[in-house]
Amino acid sequence: MAGSMIGLVKEHRGPGAVLKEVPIPTCSDDEVLVQIKATSICGTDLHIYNWDAWAEKTVITPNVFGHEFAGVVVEIGDRVRGVKLGDHVSAEGHMSCGNCKACRTGNGHVCPHTKSFGITAPGCFAEFAVVKASNLICNAPELPFEIACLQDPLGNAVQTVLSGDIVGKSVAIIGVGPIGLLAIKVARACGAGAIYAVDINPNRLGIALQMGADVTINALQTRTSEELRKLTDGEGVEVVLEMSGSPLAIADAFEAAANAGRVSLLGLPTKEVSLDVTNQIIFKGLKVEGITGRKMYQTWYQMKGLLNQKRVDLASVITHKFTLEQYEEAFRLMQEGQCGKIVFMH
Amino acid sequence: MAGSMIGLVKEHRGPGAVLKEVPIPTCSDDEVLVQIKATSICGTDLHIYNWDAWAEKTVITPNVFGHEFAGVVVEIGDRVRGVKLGDHVSAEGHMSCGNCKACRTGNGHVCPHTKSFGITAPGCFAEFAVVKASNLICNAPELPFEIACLQDPLGNAVQTVLSGDIVGKSVAIIGVGPIGLLAIKVARACGAGAIYAVDINPNRLGIALQMGADVTINALQTRTSEELRKLTDGEGVEVVLEMSGSPLAIADAFEAAANAGRVSLLGLPTKEVSLDVTNQIIFKGLKVEGITGRKMYQTWYQMKGLLNQKRVDLASVITHKFTLEQYEEAFRLMQEGQCGKIVFMH
Amino acid sequence: MAGSMIGLVKEHRGPGAVLKEVPIPTCSDDEVLVQIKATSICGTDLHIYNWDAWAEKTVITPNVFGHEFAGVVVEIGDRVRGVKLGDHVSAEGHMSCGNCKACRTGNGHVCPHTKSFGITAPGCFAEFAVVKASNLICNAPELPFEIACLQDPLGNAVQTVLSGDIVGKSVAIIGVGPIGLLAIKVARACGAGAIYAVDINPNRLGIALQMGADVTINALQTRTSEELRKLTDGEGVEVVLEMSGSPLAIADAFEAAANAGRVSLLGLPTKEVSLDVTNQIIFKGLKVEGITGRKMYQTWYQMKGLLNQKRVDLASVITHKFTLEQYEEAFRLMQEGQCGKIVFMH
Amino acid sequence: MAGSMIGLVKEHRGPGAVLKEVPIPTCSDDEVLVQIKATSICGTDLHIYNWDAWAEKTVITPNVFGHEFAGVVVEIGDRVRGVKLGDHVSAEGHMSCGNCKACRTGNGHVCPHTKSFGITAPGCFAEFAVVKASNLICNAPELPFEIACLQDPLGNAVQTVLSGDIVGKSVAIIGVGPIGLLAIKVARACGAGAIYAVDINPNRLGIALQMGADVTINALQTRTSEELRKLTDGEGVEVVLEMSGSPLAIADAFEAAANAGRVSLLGLPTKEVSLDVTNQIIFKGLKVEGITGRKMYQTWYQMKGLLNQKRVDLASVITHKFTLEQYEEAFRLMQEGQCGKIVFMH
Repeated sequence: MAGSMIGLVKEHRGPGAVLKEVPIPTCSDDEVLVQIKATSICGTDLHIYNWDAWAEKTVITPNVFGHEFAGVVVEIGDRVRGVKLGDHVSAEGHMSCGNCKACRTGNGHVCPHTKSFGITAPGCFAEFAVVKASNLICNAPELPFEIACLQDPLGNAVQTVLSGDIVGKSVAIIGVGPIGLLAIKVARACGAGAIYAVDINPNRLGIALQMGADVTINALQTRTSEELRKLTDGEGVEVVLEMSGSPLAIADAFEAAANAGRVSLLGLPTKEVSLDVTNQIIFKGLKVEGITGRKMYQTWYQMKGLLNQKRVDLASVITHKFTLEQYEEAFRLMQEGQCGKIVFMH
Repeated sequence: MAGSMIGLVKEHRGPGAVLKEVPIPTCSDDEVLVQIKATSICGTDLHIYNWDAWAEKTVITPNVFGHEFAGVVVEIGDRVRGVKLGDHVSAEGHMSCGNCKACRTGNGHVCPHTKSFGITAPGCFAEFAVVKASNLICNAPELPFEIACLQDPLGNAVQTVLSGDIVGKSVAIIGVGPIGLLAIKVARACGAGAIYAVDINPNRLGIALQMGADVTINALQTRTSEELRKLTDGEGVEVVLEMSGSPLAIADAFEAAANAGRVSLLGLPTKEVSLDVTNQIIFKGLKVEGITGRKMYQTWYQMKGLLNQKRVDLASVITHKFTLEQYEEAFRLMQEGQCGKIVFMH
Repeated sequence: MAGSMIGLVKEHRGPGAVLKEVPIPTCSDDEVLVQIKATSICGTDLHIYNWDAWAEKTVITPNVFGHEFAGVVVEIGDRVRGVKLGDHVSAEGHMSCGNCKACRTGNGHVCPHTKSFGITAPGCFAEFAVVKASNLICNAPELPFEIACLQDPLGNAVQTVLSGDIVGKSVAIIGVGPIGLLAIKVARACGAGAIYAVDINPNRLGIALQMGADVTINALQTRTSEELRKLTDGEGVEVVLEMSGSPLAIADAFEAAANAGRVSLLGLPTKEVSLDVTNQIIFKGLKVEGITGRKMYQTWYQMKGLLNQKRVDLASVITHKFTLEQYEEAFRLMQEGQCGKIVFMH
Repeated sequence: MAGSMIGLVKEHRGPGAVLKEVPIPTCSDDEVLVQIKATSICGTDLHIYNWDAWAEKTVITPNVFGHEFAGVVVEIGDRVRGVKLGDHVSAEGHMSCGNCKACRTGNGHVCPHTKSFGITAPGCFAEFAVVKASNLICNAPELPFEIACLQDPLGNAVQTVLSGDIVGKSVAIIGVGPIGLLAIKVARACGAGAIYAVDINPNRLGIALQMGADVTINALQTRTSEELRKLTDGEGVEVVLEMSGSPLAIADAFEAAANAGRVSLLGLPTKEVSLDVTNQIIFKGLKVEGITGRKMYQTWYQMKGLLNQKRVDLASVITHKFTLEQYEEAFRLMQEGQCGKIVFMH
């Protein structure tokens, strides 16, 4: 499809972004062109918008950014199979190489040769986007676009919750930003026992309670690990999902874990973390899991089952909807952190 | 505690049972005495009541039978730790030896030296029962006795549902008697995708729908595997939970399973089953799990988390409540099969 | 590469094959052309050669058959990455679609859209063969071609042995044809406890002993399950690897299994198998695994580690080497069954 | 059995120990009395002998210490089943409570109520020892006592090696003291790919090579993670077994791990460890396992299979044999670290 479109472009290697006319990207023979219907803002997009050290090191410019989307297929490369015009789709944003040992053994999510849609390759904050066929996910036509675009962060939550046993187990979710809130929904949908939500933002703790957390803990008012130990008859929490990225919270997360428990780490600390390995990992017989991305593509099929059967209801996670033109207001809200997911309706 | 009590006794090696005065059992130093508050009727109890070939081969007489219960601790043996008078309790009915390789490697549920509470040892259809301390489960005091007594069959359902991955997967539950109905509840609580309930009894299929099945299939009106294949775009069902015990249904259950799927077998056929091993197990790369009892005691802790946090609501599974005096009516109802769980309030 | 080559061709839909000049196959842009250095004969090749009912239903003609090979890359399609001229290679013979749920969730070995190299597509009993790039395996240059070509059946053995825990466990391998013999090697290399080899062919049992079996059982002289139960203090065998495909042996394999044991089924029965599901699967709490092909591509990486470090020594499994011209003698030997693996040196 | 015996006693809360006459311990009704035939010295015994901060905090006095043993049953408590006079035995040293959630869910090795044989309860450096029946392991009569007494540290190695997949995978064993050396043996016996042994002691690296390591790395001469990355084509090591307890080595162990790899931590650092959680755990998608003790009792059954079938040969791990009278020389040797396992023949 020739012509131009409006896209939100990271143009310069500094703060900000600009909404402008750019060419509609061309679709090679193993890609499809998607008309974007809804997108959502990831924390990563805020890093790109604000332009921090990570962005400077990682992000290409000029580039249409954004990677969480739902849309409709409007053009299909010659070699692409299993998709047709009009299909409702989203996509896995990690474009792994497909050839390496990681890719060939079910670990494409940690392929060292990954390109990232909307970060190191063109993305979706635009009218159209080109997507690698191997990464395409067909959505049920009944699934609203604004829900379907949330599958990228939902997948982070699903992989974190399900990186070990969850049924009947006590769970602490440390850091209830958007992915933490989704993790509460997922944990409930998957049979978790008591769910403890931890944050330093009372507003978010309020939302966490609405999302299904059984108890909330304000980490500014109490030491999380002590409070969790009290709440669990001194045993500690069986499953700790670390989603804050705070070094202190991470160290405390290990203290909160019960013997033979699990700590799944998703939040990214920007500094080294000092851990009492002997007492908090070894003598406890802990399992620790580093979580990144989504399993390709088991996590997506787990989401499909949960979403199509309405086992999780994500509508309440969306606190704001904007048009792409309102991007400055949207990013300001993200910056302030007083929100769940923010969605752009294209 | 000296004295006598009223108990439902299997007295003779033939059909029927008799409600009569018997001595309160004495509690040795590694046992506790429990005042029974609620019991429920298992299919096994009906086999004992009706006295079939299995019962003739297995059951001791005279004996107070019944093994699903909830009660209160009224006496504690000298060597027993971790329980106190007044605690609300239930118990695992499989009294495994504790010494053999199965018991020492987490497989006590298939210990070859197991004695069975209420079958090969005195049971709970009475005012009091003696329980081995190792088998005791402490219930939350808030948990109603009539719900707590259902943990034995609930545990069968939990072990069956969770004998492999379940989140987001399509599930067929074949045979929706009481355990099948509980399995629907458990599958929903644990994040299953589409749940298909199969039976030949329209009444039960109606209850199944109320319990949360997404679709019901009457196996008298259609071939289950064909219907399931239609409902799953030709792929077959990812998880098949066989709870009917019918040889034909079992063979068809394998046909219904998707490639790389799972078939968990709980229902006990009384005849050999003829299977197309090549096409229905090997070429499909299936996993098959034989399910008996409950994992000792992981299953019980899973239930504790689910019940204490109200992730499953069992009240609707109880269709009838009786006193022990009404046992003849209760067993007649069981015989007719037009019921969910029948509970005796003691 | 233009020109012609000598290939062993299944020309007519009946018994036999013919060695003749055929065109060198052309390599499309996602394929490579391999100069074949060594091939081996699979039981499947014998079915094709003899032309049985399975072959009639499945095999294409005319076609160069054979699928177990090692060779050298001589031409590379334009889109192929990660391989260079002169690389030593073998290949997974199951050419799965890559698009379906099975393929996208680590279950490509049961992709319903699979094409099979040398069966439903051109194969390797020739001077050259074309191989799909996605299916290519790079071998260590030090690995002899005659060993490297055995990875296809070795992979069957590896997947069967490792479809559950093996370390320290008693293992019965029922049917010690070539894959059974490889399974003995693999089981020993992977820390199995006592290894029991079962067959009806005394010659093969002799080879099994040389390969590392601890005890052999002639199933014509004794009932396997009874003998195995005696050898395991009445407990039964913890891991049963069924590689005979005999319906009677399969039924007996379940009897031989210990409580909480595993039965992995690889041998393909041509008739239905009648099983005592209640006593031999459910009450035992067995796990049953249907095994087909190799995990794509975990099994291949497991083999790479085992072969490159010489953890398994396969030289002794090769009992005969021929040139392709001697194919009639080779197939006659296969027919008689008095052999391990037969290799063609090209 | 009344009377007295010679035992190695930790008498005072300071360095040293004394060989003296003490009463033969009395065996209660759930215990057995064992005549000790062979014992070995654990690193923990050296801590007790030298009396460091850990010992001051943990160890009871006066007490016969030592916990690695093999012996013969000479007296059996009234309630004990499954053992008879003359049986050859060893024992799990962690005497867990049996009642708590950890104990009831297969995690007795991290029971918070554990007593430790030879540390917080009487041990085995003596002519006789009393052992809790639940902890007893029956050895094959053919197994030499000097080998059988090594099962406690062998079990550490087995649990570490097998806390994730091992077959065909590259493995780095960091720290090849006695347990590290045993881990090399176990890794080879269980099908590991390339085995890299790392230490700062050239003598130990020499022994490691004899035990079956494929490559050794002196961590004083090179940066381990860099060297391992070179040896693995830049990918890193798939399985890292950390047995040194050095904080720097632990941090470097994470750097050495491949994406989707595993780090199993057994060595106990005495200080906090600073880790780059983002890059070395999360973005790699690592699994980390804290390892303590042995799985009760799966690890013991794995050892039984390996030892009875001679899949591991431990004789070469024993570098010195002494009588208990030579304890001062034995502990001096341990102190100097120029040894494999030191065994006392009683």
